[in-house]
Amino acid sequence: MRIDRHPRGVFVPALTPFQRDLAVDAERFVTHCKSLLDEGAGGLAVFGTTSEANSLSNGERMHLLDLLIAGGVAAGALMPGTGCCALPDTVALTRHAVAHGAFGVLLLPPFYYKSVSDDGIYASVAEVIQRVADARLRIYLYHIPPMAGVGFSLPVIERLLKAFPAVVVGIKDSSGDWNHTRAMLEAFPGFEVFPGSETYLLDALRRGGAGCISATANVNVAAMQRLVETWMTPAADTLQAQLSAVRAAIQRFPLVSANKAILADAQSAPGWNVVRPPLRPLSAEATAELLRSLASLEFVLRKTPVTA
Amino acid sequence: MRIDRHPRGVFVPALTPFQRDLAVDAERFVTHCKSLLDEGAGGLAVFGTTSEANSLSNGERMHLLDLLIAGGVAAGALMPGTGCCALPDTVALTRHAVAHGAFGVLLLPPFYYKSVSDDGIYASVAEVIQRVADARLRIYLYHIPPMAGVGFSLPVIERLLKAFPAVVVGIKDSSGDWNHTRAMLEAFPGFEVFPGSETYLLDALRRGGAGCISATANVNVAAMQRLVETWMTPAADTLQAQLSAVRAAIQRFPLVSANKAILADAQSAPGWNVVRPPLRPLSAEATAELLRSLASLEFVLRKTPVTA
Repeated sequence: MRIDRHPRGVFVPALTPFQRDLAVDAERFVTHCKSLLDEGAGGLAVFGTTSEANSLSNGERMHLLDLLIAGGVAAGALMPGTGCCALPDTVALTRHAVAHGAFGVLLLPPFYYKSVSDDGIYASVAEVIQRVADARLRIYLYHIPPMAGVGFSLPVIERLLKAFPAVVVGIKDSSGDWNHTRAMLEAFPGFEVFPGSETYLLDALRRGGAGCISATANVNVAAMQRLVETWMTPAADTLQAQLSAVRAAIQRFPLVSANKAILADAQSAPGWNVVRPPLRPLSAEATAELLRSLASLEFVLRKTPVTA
Repeated sequence: MRIDRHPRGVFVPALTPFQRDLAVDAERFVTHCKSLLDEGAGGLAVFGTTSEANSLSNGERMHLLDLLIAGGVAAGALMPGTGCCALPDTVALTRHAVAHGAFGVLLLPPFYYKSVSDDGIYASVAEVIQRVADARLRIYLYHIPPMAGVGFSLPVIERLLKAFPAVVVGIKDSSGDWNHTRAMLEAFPGFEVFPGSETYLLDALRRGGAGCISATANVNVAAMQRLVETWMTPAADTLQAQLSAVRAAIQRFPLVSANKAILADAQSAPGWNVVRPPLRPLSAEATAELLRSLASLEFVLRKTPVTA
């Protein structure tokens, strides 16, 4: 059913750094992305929820993708998020990503209208595929109902796989519901399922999962990638327990701001704390509590200061 | 507290017609908007939920606004929706609307991230106001939690009114919760509160409400406007009951597609039925049922065929 092999492992929804005036800090973004690949990331799912992608204009997204590639990041390591509310926007971003050689795109469903029909969600994806009209297009569906308010049901996925078997190749499942992830792994052999949290990484790998795409990979990608490489060894359960403990410590706080606070501390770069509204930076108290709880865990973040 | 008087009455979130290939049908849009004003609409809240605005690119929205004004619609009758997920998009659309003389903008909060803080919502609006930096800017908040998944709490509104009394002048309340509408009418005298449904029009007018902004005004604006003009007469309750019955008959179906189906029938213009995904057109069966139920009510839609 699949026409080629795709990258697997841990994909990082890379954080987008901002300057004090809320402009994108492009230089820090490129540095961060390259550092994640240096640490062993299987690829970069840039422009996801953790990237505050929906707080960026389309122009900003396309410019950052251009800069990444110009900066030496292999386009084949990129799975940019391109799903918007409006079909013309999704088509424009998807075309741009494909034209630049991204190996796939991560596609949110249109997420403004709620309680839409399966037929409407199917039509949304089908229109994108037909309008982009490029044999290189590979789509990873982005299922994150807690944030988007709409998602991809199993019947919709089945219908898409039947109609577009060479295009719709995988999914990021950020439902937070392992039963849903498992149901997809069982129902669609060969479909590349990435849980949206490393909490389910070992369980997914044991059932044929492709890896994970996780917010906290921004600060813990090396350990996650180690599990991908050693999941068949006896040490796997211990490593999974360590990963889960770190994840649990971080996700007690809003994920984007918490990841940024960790990098701000590790790199002595307070600028990392800037987020675009409606998100807010972590408070000093919450940051101290987060760092304290991480200090007691098996968690090693490279302390290299990158920029001040 | 208010520095000037604003238009009041029934504002129509004008439907956006599409061609078969899903391109905007600009000519039909301009014709529809002018016809709504001819029928007595107090103004046009173009680019709202009913307009499928979040299914349009920013370029499409700006182009349509340009065409409306070029086509002879008074800019002072326009309250375009300009709230997007991304701050740069909201700022661009808002600047464009203000520069073109719109009397106000209808501002959705950024609606991708859920469970955001009041502080984050406040900052979102404050950033828009500071970046647009135009004394002509008048903001109507767009509160529609069932669709957006986020809204404007009373404490946020209070804070905005205190910080920006000349800018934040009103709200469209599409919560569907009359108690919430009433709470705002009582808490913020002078704040222009528009219920998002004519079901609450008379109740709102009796408590100082500014009118309503309703999806079904696309097909029933004349009757709604009549209530605005006669709400202090003995006939008001009867007229409200008629409006509520029509609204109830239509909102048994998905509102955008149902309004389009009614216009398609009235104008013998099947092209009106086209919606962009994720919405879907009303089925033939549902359309027949809808038209049957309207036929038994006090509902008169001008039957003028406009374009085929």
